[in-house]
Amino acid sequence: MKDLLLIGIGPGDPRQVTYEAVDALRRASVFFVLDKGTEKDELVRLRKAILQRYRPEGGYRLVQVADPSRDGQALDYVGAVQDWHRQRAALYSRLIAHEIGADDVGAFLLWGEPGLYDSTLRMLDWVREGGLALRLQVIPGISSVQALAARHQVPLNRIGEPLTVLPGRRLAEQERIDNVVVMLDGQCAFASLDDPGLMIYWGAYLGTADEVLIAGPLQAVKAQILQVREEARGRKGWIMDTYLLRREL
Amino acid sequence: MKDLLLIGIGPGDPRQVTYEAVDALRRASVFFVLDKGTEKDELVRLRKAILQRYRPEGGYRLVQVADPSRDGQALDYVGAVQDWHRQRAALYSRLIAHEIGADDVGAFLLWGEPGLYDSTLRMLDWVREGGLALRLQVIPGISSVQALAARHQVPLNRIGEPLTVLPGRRLAEQERIDNVVVMLDGQCAFASLDDPGLMIYWGAYLGTADEVLIAGPLQAVKAQILQVREEARGRKGWIMDTYLLRREL
Repeated sequence: MKDLLLIGIGPGDPRQVTYEAVDALRRASVFFVLDKGTEKDELVRLRKAILQRYRPEGGYRLVQVADPSRDGQALDYVGAVQDWHRQRAALYSRLIAHEIGADDVGAFLLWGEPGLYDSTLRMLDWVREGGLALRLQVIPGISSVQALAARHQVPLNRIGEPLTVLPGRRLAEQERIDNVVVMLDGQCAFASLDDPGLMIYWGAYLGTADEVLIAGPLQAVKAQILQVREEARGRKGWIMDTYLLRREL
Repeated sequence: MKDLLLIGIGPGDPRQVTYEAVDALRRASVFFVLDKGTEKDELVRLRKAILQRYRPEGGYRLVQVADPSRDGQALDYVGAVQDWHRQRAALYSRLIAHEIGADDVGAFLLWGEPGLYDSTLRMLDWVREGGLALRLQVIPGISSVQALAARHQVPLNRIGEPLTVLPGRRLAEQERIDNVVVMLDGQCAFASLDDPGLMIYWGAYLGTADEVLIAGPLQAVKAQILQVREEARGRKGWIMDTYLLRREL
């Protein structure tokens, strides 16, 4: 039986971490950090900064591994993501089997909220199906969605209205947008919407020193968002952004 | 200009509070606690416990006020809620004007996440429209939705699928349920669904000593949830619960 913690560490600001998460950080003896390549080195560095802040005395091992890359051009999107996740699950099985000893507690540091657009829980289901017994604990974290709403000082939903959270590629099929949060939108799906009744609240690098916020009527600010986004991505080499679309009453 | 903090304090567990929220708690000199009547006294007590934990030295004022009650039987649901919110906004205007002095920092302690099914931001818009200038800061908190997913160890959404969060009264109109989180469901809308393909992950009093969790195929466990829910509500006099519905593939 392997002890494993999935710790939500928030969107980037080390103060947006819960006491529960820090208790968990302090129980772990092995941390797994997946390195997605040079463009995301900063994300590894930010995780190390969180460890240094809350575990200044050290006394843990950091296992840093190259993450299998995904075929971003595949026509079958879901199939490509599933293949990629299976490769990662095989990698995780090996890591957990070899790196978590009988007296160890392993931990994954997960950006934002472990339950929202994060595949680790699903991968661990596959690890278990492969025969490895896990004793799991999941610690929720502040998602970028919440950081976005807090920084713009807007609620995510209005009285009695549903909130939908979806990936960019599912935005076009929404018949009606009242309160929609879009994540993982590398293609800037918002730019294709012509609806004059929508407001957008956009943010990138939330919780970090590079945070950028833009809000306004979608049609009035979308060109500005595209430009600011492209400049920031060019300068830093990567971008993580999210936005809320809301129909004005 | 009145300084005011909206602090998300999580679903109930004082460890599910962020360092940012505790920094804010320590900056505030006046805390507003709305007392919703005897059945919710425990919620006031839980907030005081959080203050005692993170401000043990005291040095702040606690302003406890009776909250206007809402007409729960009104036919025009949205209208009734809006009337109720306007009454509350008038109350908040008076409180902020009288209780937050020039050197004070006021704070509302909000359960869960200030952006999700919480009306305080909307009320403060009305307070501002009434002429009071506010310097606001919003601090995100762990929502009961996140606590639910973490305790059940399930992701809120699957690969590429949208997540919808809605109040119970909007559940019946959903044409298709893939990943739906229901909040504020006093009427147990899940019990009316006959769909055999749905799983339910239900939780009440999340993050507190009274936490209850039930998960399984909806049709197999819905009677059990209704019974456990009614017993708990009878015993404690109130209930706060939420659930995730998911279509099995």
